[in-house]
Amino acid sequence: MAKEDLAALDAHWRAANYLSVGQIYLMGNPLLTEPLRPEHIKPRLLGHWGTSPGLNLVHTHLNRVIKERDLDALCVWGPGHGGPAVLANAWLEGSYTQRYPAVTRDAEGMARLFRQFSFPGGVPSHVAPETPGSIHEGGELGYSLAHAYGAAFDNPGLVVACVIGDGEAETGPLAGSWHSNKFLDPVHDGAVLPILHLNGYKIANPTLLARLPDAELDALLKGYGHEPLYVAGDDPLTVHHTMAEAMDQALDRIAALQRAARSGGAHTRHRWPVIVLRTPKGWTGPRTVDGVPVENTWRSHQVPLSEVRENPGHLRQLEQWLRSYRPDELFDAEGGPTEDVLTCVPEGERRLGATPRANGGLLSRPLPLPPLERFAVTVDEPGATSHEPTRVAGELLAQVMADTARRRDFRVVGPDETESNRLGALYGATGKAWQERTLDTDEHLARDGRVMEVLSEHLCQGWLEGYTLTGRHGLFSCYEAFVHIVDSMVNQHIKWLKTSRSLPWRAPVPSLNYLLTSHVWRQDHNGFSHQDPGFVDHVLNKSPDVVRVYLPPDANTLLSVTEHVLDSRDYVNVVVAGKQPCFDWLSLDAARAHCARGAGVWEWAGTDDGTRDPDVVLACAGDVPTQEVLAAAGLLRELLPELAVRVVNVVDIARLMPREEHPHGMPDSEFDALFTRDRPVIFAYHGYPWLIHRLAYRRTGHANLHVRGYKEAGTTTTPFDMVVRNDLDRYRLVMDVIDRVPGLAVRATAVRQAMTDARTRHHAWIREHGTDLPEVADWTWPHTSGG
Amino acid sequence: MAKEDLAALDAHWRAANYLSVGQIYLMGNPLLTEPLRPEHIKPRLLGHWGTSPGLNLVHTHLNRVIKERDLDALCVWGPGHGGPAVLANAWLEGSYTQRYPAVTRDAEGMARLFRQFSFPGGVPSHVAPETPGSIHEGGELGYSLAHAYGAAFDNPGLVVACVIGDGEAETGPLAGSWHSNKFLDPVHDGAVLPILHLNGYKIANPTLLARLPDAELDALLKGYGHEPLYVAGDDPLTVHHTMAEAMDQALDRIAALQRAARSGGAHTRHRWPVIVLRTPKGWTGPRTVDGVPVENTWRSHQVPLSEVRENPGHLRQLEQWLRSYRPDELFDAEGGPTEDVLTCVPEGERRLGATPRANGGLLSRPLPLPPLERFAVTVDEPGATSHEPTRVAGELLAQVMADTARRRDFRVVGPDETESNRLGALYGATGKAWQERTLDTDEHLARDGRVMEVLSEHLCQGWLEGYTLTGRHGLFSCYEAFVHIVDSMVNQHIKWLKTSRSLPWRAPVPSLNYLLTSHVWRQDHNGFSHQDPGFVDHVLNKSPDVVRVYLPPDANTLLSVTEHVLDSRDYVNVVVAGKQPCFDWLSLDAARAHCARGAGVWEWAGTDDGTRDPDVVLACAGDVPTQEVLAAAGLLRELLPELAVRVVNVVDIARLMPREEHPHGMPDSEFDALFTRDRPVIFAYHGYPWLIHRLAYRRTGHANLHVRGYKEAGTTTTPFDMVVRNDLDRYRLVMDVIDRVPGLAVRATAVRQAMTDARTRHHAWIREHGTDLPEVADWTWPHTSGG
Repeated sequence: MAKEDLAALDAHWRAANYLSVGQIYLMGNPLLTEPLRPEHIKPRLLGHWGTSPGLNLVHTHLNRVIKERDLDALCVWGPGHGGPAVLANAWLEGSYTQRYPAVTRDAEGMARLFRQFSFPGGVPSHVAPETPGSIHEGGELGYSLAHAYGAAFDNPGLVVACVIGDGEAETGPLAGSWHSNKFLDPVHDGAVLPILHLNGYKIANPTLLARLPDAELDALLKGYGHEPLYVAGDDPLTVHHTMAEAMDQALDRIAALQRAARSGGAHTRHRWPVIVLRTPKGWTGPRTVDGVPVENTWRSHQVPLSEVRENPGHLRQLEQWLRSYRPDELFDAEGGPTEDVLTCVPEGERRLGATPRANGGLLSRPLPLPPLERFAVTVDEPGATSHEPTRVAGELLAQVMADTARRRDFRVVGPDETESNRLGALYGATGKAWQERTLDTDEHLARDGRVMEVLSEHLCQGWLEGYTLTGRHGLFSCYEAFVHIVDSMVNQHIKWLKTSRSLPWRAPVPSLNYLLTSHVWRQDHNGFSHQDPGFVDHVLNKSPDVVRVYLPPDANTLLSVTEHVLDSRDYVNVVVAGKQPCFDWLSLDAARAHCARGAGVWEWAGTDDGTRDPDVVLACAGDVPTQEVLAAAGLLRELLPELAVRVVNVVDIARLMPREEHPHGMPDSEFDALFTRDRPVIFAYHGYPWLIHRLAYRRTGHANLHVRGYKEAGTTTTPFDMVVRNDLDRYRLVMDVIDRVPGLAVRATAVRQAMTDARTRHHAWIREHGTDLPEVADWTWPHTSGG
Repeated sequence: MAKEDLAALDAHWRAANYLSVGQIYLMGNPLLTEPLRPEHIKPRLLGHWGTSPGLNLVHTHLNRVIKERDLDALCVWGPGHGGPAVLANAWLEGSYTQRYPAVTRDAEGMARLFRQFSFPGGVPSHVAPETPGSIHEGGELGYSLAHAYGAAFDNPGLVVACVIGDGEAETGPLAGSWHSNKFLDPVHDGAVLPILHLNGYKIANPTLLARLPDAELDALLKGYGHEPLYVAGDDPLTVHHTMAEAMDQALDRIAALQRAARSGGAHTRHRWPVIVLRTPKGWTGPRTVDGVPVENTWRSHQVPLSEVRENPGHLRQLEQWLRSYRPDELFDAEGGPTEDVLTCVPEGERRLGATPRANGGLLSRPLPLPPLERFAVTVDEPGATSHEPTRVAGELLAQVMADTARRRDFRVVGPDETESNRLGALYGATGKAWQERTLDTDEHLARDGRVMEVLSEHLCQGWLEGYTLTGRHGLFSCYEAFVHIVDSMVNQHIKWLKTSRSLPWRAPVPSLNYLLTSHVWRQDHNGFSHQDPGFVDHVLNKSPDVVRVYLPPDANTLLSVTEHVLDSRDYVNVVVAGKQPCFDWLSLDAARAHCARGAGVWEWAGTDDGTRDPDVVLACAGDVPTQEVLAAAGLLRELLPELAVRVVNVVDIARLMPREEHPHGMPDSEFDALFTRDRPVIFAYHGYPWLIHRLAYRRTGHANLHVRGYKEAGTTTTPFDMVVRNDLDRYRLVMDVIDRVPGLAVRATAVRQAMTDARTRHHAWIREHGTDLPEVADWTWPHTSGG
């Protein structure tokens, strides 16, 4: 590279470093037009300097190649706690001012940029939704590479750079993410360029990867399937030179690999490049502070000089540090960046802070959703037939997959469970993404497949987050218990969506949809370790603007809910539905109406004539509880026919919440009309019973609410034994009714005894035969055609 | 190896395979003494065959080397869903009968072994607490290697073999666990021998690692710092031969490395061996079923022949399969294993199913806990001084660390946050475990350190689980928000402990202790992504026999709670405490008494004279809420002195639960006496407010309970602004009191207005200065010495 080109890169880098330091420290005198005084310093010094110079270097060099090659590029900043760096670059390139016009590209805007950083009412210290050009929060480490791949899938023209800190590289999810390259199709997908930034330290320790022997690191990256390019040093101009070379080599290689694959067809998996960038932590910051080494140690992680307001020595050192970037060369008289600084910066939407790829809602098209009539099961009478709900929904998903064959903006991810979850119809429309070698016995593997299976919930979640945040659609089908593996990831995604919703410039993105199946009640093969319905509780702690939870009780309601969530934006939708055969309760029309209401009376199931409040309400949410409630209703109809029983089914669990606490919450009047104000309500719920109390505790009739659900009484056993162990079975529900309805006829005592006897019979039978009682296994809803 | 030795190994392996198949299929005719008939077959065919022959091979070969070398060994079975294999081996070696005398080592016992497997009331299909010799559930994948390292730390005489399935190897946590070898001290720790079992398939797909080019796999394992030994094939005798060789090489190498390190001192990190075992999935099972390939495909994952009861062809094929192991050579007339089969089996506690290492409570000693008086802060008056609670607790932990210097049975783990969490005193007693190269600038790194820092919550959790399950003690200090990363792991650990408690032969193990700090209210540097108090909600869904949650409000209460949890067994203890300066409220004696009660009135803080019910109860749980409640109590004392205010602090959150739902739950009478039956209770809680409702909804006075807490109103801001944003601040609490206490004097209206004004003042001040109002920053509890 020519010397003047290097100098221009260096100017840009210095400017970004200057602005990064300024954000951490200054609330006045942004251009150092006068000597620094304590009152120019923020009262609370917050932020992360250590990673910032490295991020600035990467951004500077990405600018150059984007501009030179007219690249469509996106960058995922793994060490996004280095927020000042990404903000500095966005301000330099003008994308920041574009989103936030008050933060102008002059001295006044610079002052605003500095002051607002980590300041109450200002902007967060990390890369966050507020940061232009980002799809990745820098707070929780581990997911950058998975996000980058998610963004690259089905974006063949896109290059996604991904900075991975050596701290983040120690996390499990990141370590597993390297293998994402086995799923990237060079023909239909874009490229991911990982940049492993070894600055040597995390918060208080050296990092594992930075201290590996060179040969071991090289073997590791090659073992991950990458071709490493090394950039190392602490002399800026030398590093600029090597970095520019490495970037060019990496992008040349990417272009060559893509050309080869796209002309001749891909036949082997590529060894994609990875850049290893080894520069000092806190590079160009104070070498030592109070005699202790700071640059190139963990001590530069956050704020290297911590007593700037009180300690004149620190203040002086800060001023020297800031002036070492020679701000007078970098900013003009008005405080805007000089031409030299901006030499490397690309134009318009090519700027990393302005790319619509990072504002995926702008690029997103609604999914083509076929009429549900084509997939619905026929229901002439409730409970006369049964289907596997997820298999029925699988046909809908397969059609959506087929209808997006050209658009390629829909993917289904899962940890090796798509077939097991009865969604195999998808393979009629696409294959499973796979770039490794194949054998004759393999089925459905395809380089261009849009079903993604890997035994890592973290990868499934990370990929889908990256995919939806860049404007495409998808669904994550997961064993209910193991979705807890990504609890923390979904927390962050919900937080991201919550904040994005408050930013007018962020267009709504497709929702993140979960289909949780293989649920707690049907772990015949796997038992206790696979039994956990708590994800619903977990997400309901988070922002009600974002979180939706549905428990469709049968095939047609699952169809209706699936259609709804695929068509939605900016939500995290959690759908819990079984994969085992389940009675069909509602016709498609009835299912649609019921799902639209979210909760309602099933008149046909009760003995309530509607003229007055019933004697008791049997409520249910979830497929297995619904079956048990209906069986209990059937028993009551037969054994205590004079009892007025109302059956209520809840699909949309947030309807139980007060309206002030969730937009789907029903008003008290509606709640009272549905559940009554004073009658006993026996509620059979799919998960932990106290969730229902936590949602409904403000309701008038709450004291009459008696909830049955899963209470960690789990093991490998039969379906009915599971409900018995957790007191959710039909017999127990009938006993609950008898125990709670006052003034029942004497006969009720005999009925109660019959229920106890039935449970005893169950225990004896199962011990002997290992199967469920025939009367349970063969049970069907009494056909009502005769009246 | 001699031919007859190989033949004996093969006999053992065949016997284990036979018994594995028997468990999946048979409920009668266990020795095939008559032709197989449908009634011999279980009605529900459940279990996982695919991995079982591989596990049996490993167990057989471990038996040989344990016996030959008199090894103290433990095995962690990553693919523990292959429960039949581990059960088969335990039965063969006699350890199963030792634990479960009814399951004798004869035909009758074999019939029991078969029938009970995955049978209601029997044993789980996975390796589980019920399985002798195990510390690792096979249900949730990803943690085997971390568990193995946890078991090996501070057990210098122990060899921990760890079978890693190629499915599990795809998970993030497992991928990150390979780097555990950078923390294993060859002098003071035992050895881990990973056995990567590439059987090629997971549930429905090939695995990533099995399809890597050989050179890439080799590079990957070398990159992880291992020396690979390869065993591959499908001819049993050849594989036996190669496997025996590989085992010998691996153990020779381990012994040599340890000898070298222990004689000369360790100066470089070793390249420990790893065995790569490549054998077919479902090896020796049906090659094809109904014309479709099964052996060596994913189709052998669970039950290869699924219609044995109904389909005579399947029944015949099963009988051929069982007879292919030549059971008449393997079992004698009584049905016990022949001498030949048992040749390789070690004796007594050397047997893998009988080792006390896997029943760590047997080996565990109570921790030496120094008198708290040495660390307690002096509190003459409440709120007159302040300390960083975790720093005070750190001194206690440091003393325990020092006092276990010879015993080496205590470790503190954390994701690079020990110093940041103010526990740095520990470094006076030990270093941070580290086997990589060191630099002059490094601090506290030590080969034999017992503080463990790695930027992976998964590793911290997995190591500590392995460490405590083998009988040692520890504490995991973690940022509160990011402990959600291990939600699913702690689920499994709680389930493990719950089940273990019901097994008389399992001795109680040290508790798993969390210190959650850097909590939701003090994320000055990090903001919204670091704000999540929901882990408490998560664990409280799980077994109340196991889960304990403490929110000590100051330094001395934290000391008392820490002592308590370190001395406990079989619990998961969650302690939430701040690291920022916090007022000292209670003297050590008062703290001890308060913690023993778990919840109680702070008479000195209220204006309640105790003669009658107060006008209002101000309750609090957590350090920041306690401070706000006391500030509110101070305001009320000054502004509405006639109001009788009772201040209640809750340390042990489960005390709020009904006694029937948690052993710590208080009886209604005590609850009523504390909180009253009919007075308003304003409860300031550390986390999500609805948790308090969910715990207390059955209480008489529940309708009067008004809870404030964190409601996802987070960002990077000042401490006081955080409580204001979430309506937990002192001014809002006073307003809550005024809004809820009936019949207040007119003056209350003016007080309420003053509170609103104070909040307005706050908003204006913070926007201008970026700091908290001086009246808040300088607030102290009014000294009561004057009365």
